[in-house]
Amino acid sequence: MTKFKGVVPPVVTPLNPDLTVDYPSYTRVLEHLIDAGCHGVFVLGSTSEVIFHDEKTRRDVIEHSAKVVNGRVPLIVGVIDPTTDRVIAHAKVAKAAGADAVVVTAPFYTVTSQSEILDHFRYIRDAVDIPLIAYDIPVCVHVKLQRQTVVTLAREGAIIGLKDSSGDDGNFRYALLDLAEHKNVFLMTGSEIVVDTALLMGAHGVVPGIANVDPHGYVRLWDAAQRGDWVAARKEQERLCRLFEIVWVAQGRVSGGAAGIGAFKAAMRSLGIIDSAVMPRPRAALNDAETARIDEILRATGLLN
Amino acid sequence: MTKFKGVVPPVVTPLNPDLTVDYPSYTRVLEHLIDAGCHGVFVLGSTSEVIFHDEKTRRDVIEHSAKVVNGRVPLIVGVIDPTTDRVIAHAKVAKAAGADAVVVTAPFYTVTSQSEILDHFRYIRDAVDIPLIAYDIPVCVHVKLQRQTVVTLAREGAIIGLKDSSGDDGNFRYALLDLAEHKNVFLMTGSEIVVDTALLMGAHGVVPGIANVDPHGYVRLWDAAQRGDWVAARKEQERLCRLFEIVWVAQGRVSGGAAGIGAFKAAMRSLGIIDSAVMPRPRAALNDAETARIDEILRATGLLN
Amino acid sequence: MTKFKGVVPPVVTPLNPDLTVDYPSYTRVLEHLIDAGCHGVFVLGSTSEVIFHDEKTRRDVIEHSAKVVNGRVPLIVGVIDPTTDRVIAHAKVAKAAGADAVVVTAPFYTVTSQSEILDHFRYIRDAVDIPLIAYDIPVCVHVKLQRQTVVTLAREGAIIGLKDSSGDDGNFRYALLDLAEHKNVFLMTGSEIVVDTALLMGAHGVVPGIANVDPHGYVRLWDAAQRGDWVAARKEQERLCRLFEIVWVAQGRVSGGAAGIGAFKAAMRSLGIIDSAVMPRPRAALNDAETARIDEILRATGLLN
Amino acid sequence: MTKFKGVVPPVVTPLNPDLTVDYPSYTRVLEHLIDAGCHGVFVLGSTSEVIFHDEKTRRDVIEHSAKVVNGRVPLIVGVIDPTTDRVIAHAKVAKAAGADAVVVTAPFYTVTSQSEILDHFRYIRDAVDIPLIAYDIPVCVHVKLQRQTVVTLAREGAIIGLKDSSGDDGNFRYALLDLAEHKNVFLMTGSEIVVDTALLMGAHGVVPGIANVDPHGYVRLWDAAQRGDWVAARKEQERLCRLFEIVWVAQGRVSGGAAGIGAFKAAMRSLGIIDSAVMPRPRAALNDAETARIDEILRATGLLN
Repeated sequence: MTKFKGVVPPVVTPLNPDLTVDYPSYTRVLEHLIDAGCHGVFVLGSTSEVIFHDEKTRRDVIEHSAKVVNGRVPLIVGVIDPTTDRVIAHAKVAKAAGADAVVVTAPFYTVTSQSEILDHFRYIRDAVDIPLIAYDIPVCVHVKLQRQTVVTLAREGAIIGLKDSSGDDGNFRYALLDLAEHKNVFLMTGSEIVVDTALLMGAHGVVPGIANVDPHGYVRLWDAAQRGDWVAARKEQERLCRLFEIVWVAQGRVSGGAAGIGAFKAAMRSLGIIDSAVMPRPRAALNDAETARIDEILRATGLLN
Repeated sequence: MTKFKGVVPPVVTPLNPDLTVDYPSYTRVLEHLIDAGCHGVFVLGSTSEVIFHDEKTRRDVIEHSAKVVNGRVPLIVGVIDPTTDRVIAHAKVAKAAGADAVVVTAPFYTVTSQSEILDHFRYIRDAVDIPLIAYDIPVCVHVKLQRQTVVTLAREGAIIGLKDSSGDDGNFRYALLDLAEHKNVFLMTGSEIVVDTALLMGAHGVVPGIANVDPHGYVRLWDAAQRGDWVAARKEQERLCRLFEIVWVAQGRVSGGAAGIGAFKAAMRSLGIIDSAVMPRPRAALNDAETARIDEILRATGLLN
Repeated sequence: MTKFKGVVPPVVTPLNPDLTVDYPSYTRVLEHLIDAGCHGVFVLGSTSEVIFHDEKTRRDVIEHSAKVVNGRVPLIVGVIDPTTDRVIAHAKVAKAAGADAVVVTAPFYTVTSQSEILDHFRYIRDAVDIPLIAYDIPVCVHVKLQRQTVVTLAREGAIIGLKDSSGDDGNFRYALLDLAEHKNVFLMTGSEIVVDTALLMGAHGVVPGIANVDPHGYVRLWDAAQRGDWVAARKEQERLCRLFEIVWVAQGRVSGGAAGIGAFKAAMRSLGIIDSAVMPRPRAALNDAETARIDEILRATGLLN
Repeated sequence: MTKFKGVVPPVVTPLNPDLTVDYPSYTRVLEHLIDAGCHGVFVLGSTSEVIFHDEKTRRDVIEHSAKVVNGRVPLIVGVIDPTTDRVIAHAKVAKAAGADAVVVTAPFYTVTSQSEILDHFRYIRDAVDIPLIAYDIPVCVHVKLQRQTVVTLAREGAIIGLKDSSGDDGNFRYALLDLAEHKNVFLMTGSEIVVDTALLMGAHGVVPGIANVDPHGYVRLWDAAQRGDWVAARKEQERLCRLFEIVWVAQGRVSGGAAGIGAFKAAMRSLGIIDSAVMPRPRAALNDAETARIDEILRATGLLN
């Protein structure tokens, strides 16, 4: 299972003003990422605002993505909803629509124990024959996938990988150590700003949201790490950290989620990748002053002239 | 809008072993509640495990409930999912299927500001012509509906009521004070154990999950409060507090949610109201030892011989 | 042990501009409280900003208070510091200086288990022969005294009472029920805004910070509850809730702690009880605009002409 | 100000059975650390259980440390107590007793804003002429030193450095970037398990508690990083991660704090560095089974034969 690795951006979902998906822009995003050398794409994740999309839209997005990607890189699909059987239904759709693997969080809304999380993944694995990737994102689901939970699921074959967006780098490292002998398991960091160090620890992949804006940067970072040039990796990472500051431009006026993904969309529009920076309700888009500030950051980090 | 008040239990959803809804048992639950004098029923809430049910099941539950209730008491329906437009879709279904009002939480999974919460409720109100009740349940959605948010929405007519399951009784009291002049707005507590005191503060209704087990107790408590007999209200409440201890019997072995609603189901099965105590995946049902302990509590509180 | 009950305000510590204690003002605060009919005084609590005071100041405050109070009401003294043996040292001083009982929190700064909390109280009880009152204040110490912890300590005689500032009224009620047979144990709420309902539950006393500003109001509330006039109790409480809004006047500009106690001090200065509203470092005092707004609230609630 | 850098362990405080400090053992700990090549020592920090020690003990520990260290390495001293003027008093004692710099946390017990935290450090800096190091430890003080707070204090010269025990590596990285031009400011990580990656980011020093057990390991790790051998640094770090698992051996039976520092003491006793593994009240020491398990880990990581 060596095909899931490297830079695998969570794909932003561009919207039309009527809140439907803007598929021409969506196609350009995918081509932009694949052209830059990304090793996979992850659609319908948190950065994709999956949680705002209904079942039909999700199916359409997967089918469209499968058609555009056309096997050039793996297509990883988020199947994110609150409870087990609802996730199973999404996973069946994702498989039928062309997903190579699906990404599953812990249950949410319902308060859940680690024991129930174990069963959650096992039930899904038993119900759908597609590789599962566990998604550790406590900021959204309000429970952490504990080290032992991840290791147990990986060892018994219920999951083939992890996307760790918990920010707990020490715990991530222990998962890497515990699973070092399991060559078919891969562990990816969801961080944008400690990618070089996650790779030094041995991470197999990175899923940075802001790679939608600058995929070349993360591919360069990945390549530097692969050849052991940690000084170059760090230098690239530091530039990307300065770019990542766009996510705080609108913070305070709008929520953190709207500020972050709104900034990705504003930047992608400025770079000509997507047509509009529309956000799903109740999120508000960034305003002109915020967009101007983002353009400054794009110029300062070499992305805009 | 005086019809929403009094004891309005959130209706437990009995399941068959194959995880479909057990409608004969469901009918008995509704009859049990209405016979006991409850003033309304709230289906598809947290206690109903709404978050485990897909769209078709939700529609069937509402239609079944509307048919059984048949206008005898108001039918309040939870339309609970993570984001605005998904909630709007549920609300439209609920209205068509016979709901008298719908219950809406703040967005979840996505991290949301109070400003976005205001817009969330406004968008839903604009999209569907049915009374909205705000549901404050931070333990599930991880954000509190702040006093000013509730008061603003009530004053502008976006919501007609509140179900407060936050446990913040002081904040609830301030909402009661702030909205005292708004006679068409009603505020209900979701607590099981401080109902007498919420009524002393002026609460217009109560939504206690354990009223599925003992609706007569809560109706007696309500009646005592209505006639100003606070000593009797407190005495009834204290008995109900002892009954409520069933929710901790399985805690530790299973999650808090599974322990609580599992205990309601186990008790209702022991009392002959429902046929089985099956729980939706990944929740486990209570075991025999736990059920025996629950039966002891039912006997100690006068519900079982 | 029937002497600890009723209205027992946590006494504000007035400061001189050089940050020393303003004892003439302090004397006036104590007389103001005792004249109003308060049933005890609690010095060196959170409202007293105990945590800002060094050992010598604490000793002086206790000795001064003992001299002024002179046995007219019980003198309860907070002995609040992070760890067991440091609390023991404070408790010995308090006993020698004239305290009738001491108030003890869970350890803080160090992260502590319920088992260690049990031992903490037992060690202190064994080391100093003075009645202990447990102080449940998770907002400061970041751990809750669980129901079983309080009940165990009370049943074994390690504590004689509880001051519950946790805001968890349901848990407080269970402690009242569990200890109903222990006639020598008393349980007090630290709330300002749900005192009537705490008394309906059976609370033995109340420790409202804002009683420094309006002790007569809380004594009236207490008296109404004692004679079972819950309508009058609620009405008085609702007026006090409006008064309590002073604590939010400066919130946002300064921290919540500075806003709350700063408001008490500003109001007490406006009422002529203390000479200055100086706050201990790094807290800032309220400004003129905030004080003017507080004066408006004092007028609206009948305290200022 | 180049003298504060490198491996600076927070020094464990060995106790006698009567809870007094075991100074002969204390001396051996200091010699053990300095002999191993540590670049400084940090006494009276969280690992030193400073919060359990009274003023006299703290003074004695500093004076003893100054005498033993005798200028061979810098002596950094924690002056940790809840509020500004109490910290100032400790800082004056520390300066008089021979400290080269003092370590200061945000206020605790009192809930504090970032603005008050800024003032807290400024007041201390103005009151005592000794270099200040900010200590970011939200697990103990329950507030994070935000990036802007640290950067502001460093730029205005109120602090000369940071010990970051927050676990927020991304934020730490931004502080490093923001202060890159301030050559006299140094930033240290408090982590034990992501030291190699913190050094790759540019951290100037490391303060790992478990360096009390294996200072040679951290010095080797530091040296590897200094010469740019990141593969060797990672390998050493991974061995130290396996060693660090001793902190979880007793977790669950005792609190996390007792389990962690209790494990350090048990290991140091097994290695002959200190005489006893006594813990301050209310913490319990590790038991024999736990100690045996720790010895196994010491053997597996090459520290014990």
